[in-house]
Amino acid sequence: MNLPTPPLPTPDDVIAAARLLAGVAHRTPILRSTTIDRLFGARLYFKCENLQRTGSFKFRGAYCALAQFDEAQRERGVLAAAGDNHAQAVALAAREHDIPALLVMPQDTAVTTLEAARGYGAQVVTYDRASEDPERLVQRLAADRGMRVIPAADHLQMIAGHGTATLELLQEVPRLDYLFVPVGSGALLAGSLLAVRAARSACELFGVEPEAGEHARQSLQAGRIITVGQPRTIADAAQARALAPLAFEVIRAAAAPRMLGASDPQLLDALRFFAQRMKLLVEPTGALAFAGAREGGIDLHGKRVGIIVSGGNADLPRYARFISD
Amino acid sequence: MNLPTPPLPTPDDVIAAARLLAGVAHRTPILRSTTIDRLFGARLYFKCENLQRTGSFKFRGAYCALAQFDEAQRERGVLAAAGDNHAQAVALAAREHDIPALLVMPQDTAVTTLEAARGYGAQVVTYDRASEDPERLVQRLAADRGMRVIPAADHLQMIAGHGTATLELLQEVPRLDYLFVPVGSGALLAGSLLAVRAARSACELFGVEPEAGEHARQSLQAGRIITVGQPRTIADAAQARALAPLAFEVIRAAAAPRMLGASDPQLLDALRFFAQRMKLLVEPTGALAFAGAREGGIDLHGKRVGIIVSGGNADLPRYARFISD
Repeated sequence: MNLPTPPLPTPDDVIAAARLLAGVAHRTPILRSTTIDRLFGARLYFKCENLQRTGSFKFRGAYCALAQFDEAQRERGVLAAAGDNHAQAVALAAREHDIPALLVMPQDTAVTTLEAARGYGAQVVTYDRASEDPERLVQRLAADRGMRVIPAADHLQMIAGHGTATLELLQEVPRLDYLFVPVGSGALLAGSLLAVRAARSACELFGVEPEAGEHARQSLQAGRIITVGQPRTIADAAQARALAPLAFEVIRAAAAPRMLGASDPQLLDALRFFAQRMKLLVEPTGALAFAGAREGGIDLHGKRVGIIVSGGNADLPRYARFISD
Repeated sequence: MNLPTPPLPTPDDVIAAARLLAGVAHRTPILRSTTIDRLFGARLYFKCENLQRTGSFKFRGAYCALAQFDEAQRERGVLAAAGDNHAQAVALAAREHDIPALLVMPQDTAVTTLEAARGYGAQVVTYDRASEDPERLVQRLAADRGMRVIPAADHLQMIAGHGTATLELLQEVPRLDYLFVPVGSGALLAGSLLAVRAARSACELFGVEPEAGEHARQSLQAGRIITVGQPRTIADAAQARALAPLAFEVIRAAAAPRMLGASDPQLLDALRFFAQRMKLLVEPTGALAFAGAREGGIDLHGKRVGIIVSGGNADLPRYARFISD
């Protein structure tokens, strides 16, 4: 069977997404630390998407994806099988668009996440990780209710929307030399690459993924999508087993960015740095980019360096253990 | 003995301080939460001084105070007997002005605070809380070395400098109805009152102090400074036993702001709210204003409400206990 190739997102899609998100998504602050600048002999710019609505950049893409619904789709609603960040993002985006939302989440999802999703007005269906296949459940529910499924990464608007975080950073810090971006399914990295082109910037990108998986590095080397076993890492929002096909195509089409890996101990160090020095609550995945910049062996001296702090959604008792150990 | 009355700081002093701090202090972000706005039926604007350099608003006043040193004073240096936030503020301000700094701190100060102060280039002398009087130690050291002592609150430039946080908030949110400000020695509240006049704003101010002490409320009622026993509260940066005389005069001269008290359980709730919902690490004292706004019985409905989040310096293991309990 030959499926038609879906269109790739372009830099113009990122610019259109930024227009759509104006006044809806937070224009998140870009924070600095003189202490860290001295330590690195560089200028670091932290783009704080942990301070984005719903606590992660994912709201950007979700809002753009839902903006594409036609009237009939709006009435029937949106369905998402969702990790924490995507769940909350879709729930809030649906409320903003006045579209009913149904989320399929594991039974062991943190209560605060369930409450947040329900607080945004979404309906939640839980499933047992051990005995049920969420994909099958989603397909059945979508067929039953006629709802449109929004994937977390493999979606043009998701990639374009996520890219607006980097676009904002490049608008405020025009002569950025390097940008470090966390990588799970690759949608944020793909969007960031498009944003660099949209801003006509010469900024060089580095993707940072958990060292436990490194499927993105392997995929770029192999020239095809490599699927790994689920990475065992505290970076739970970057536990993807492979790049999303659309993200892979965008990343491959760009002059392939360098990929770095970060270990859990490096992520813990970075979490504590954010707490102690920057007073920011960052989730492990949100610390990937900084860990990669700090420990990835790249010479930052004299450079202007952007760091995407992608999210801050963490179960508080678990987070408390991370920073007190 | 009749001491001459020191001049009171004026709204013009706050404007001059803002000019002095431009490009030196961070213009801290003002963060919002749609969820909290819905809950309150109001618009809340969080002025995040926990994201200020050194992790609290105190850098503002300290920098302005040190800017007044003449050449001889600059050479001999600055001396401060210092709680955590004032210590770090004076240390960094001294480095920025290229003035030697000597800090007198208790032996049981958190290692991270000592390291931060030394990292900013300050010399630190520690003393035993049980057997030594820090005031006497400071006077002796000042006499020995000819250094000028900078108090944490009872100082015109400290009050004027601190007021710039509120001035920035009023510039960005011109039609603010209410502003909640934490109160220890009263310098921040005094500076905020001056900033409201400097901005020609009609904003109404509320001071929030730990319920365990409430010396400010008592002092304003009595029309003179009331000294209490050291308040037992987790809000360690607001454990002052009395208002600073200069702050008291400014506060009394203003149409006296309403004073509210916040309990430790209310502060813990507020800390968790900041962590969970806003991804901000806030110290207990920094949560006073929000706790007062939330639980002080003031009707916020339909109002634009400013909240000064004053600082984020907390020992991480202690903070971890606060948010995980």
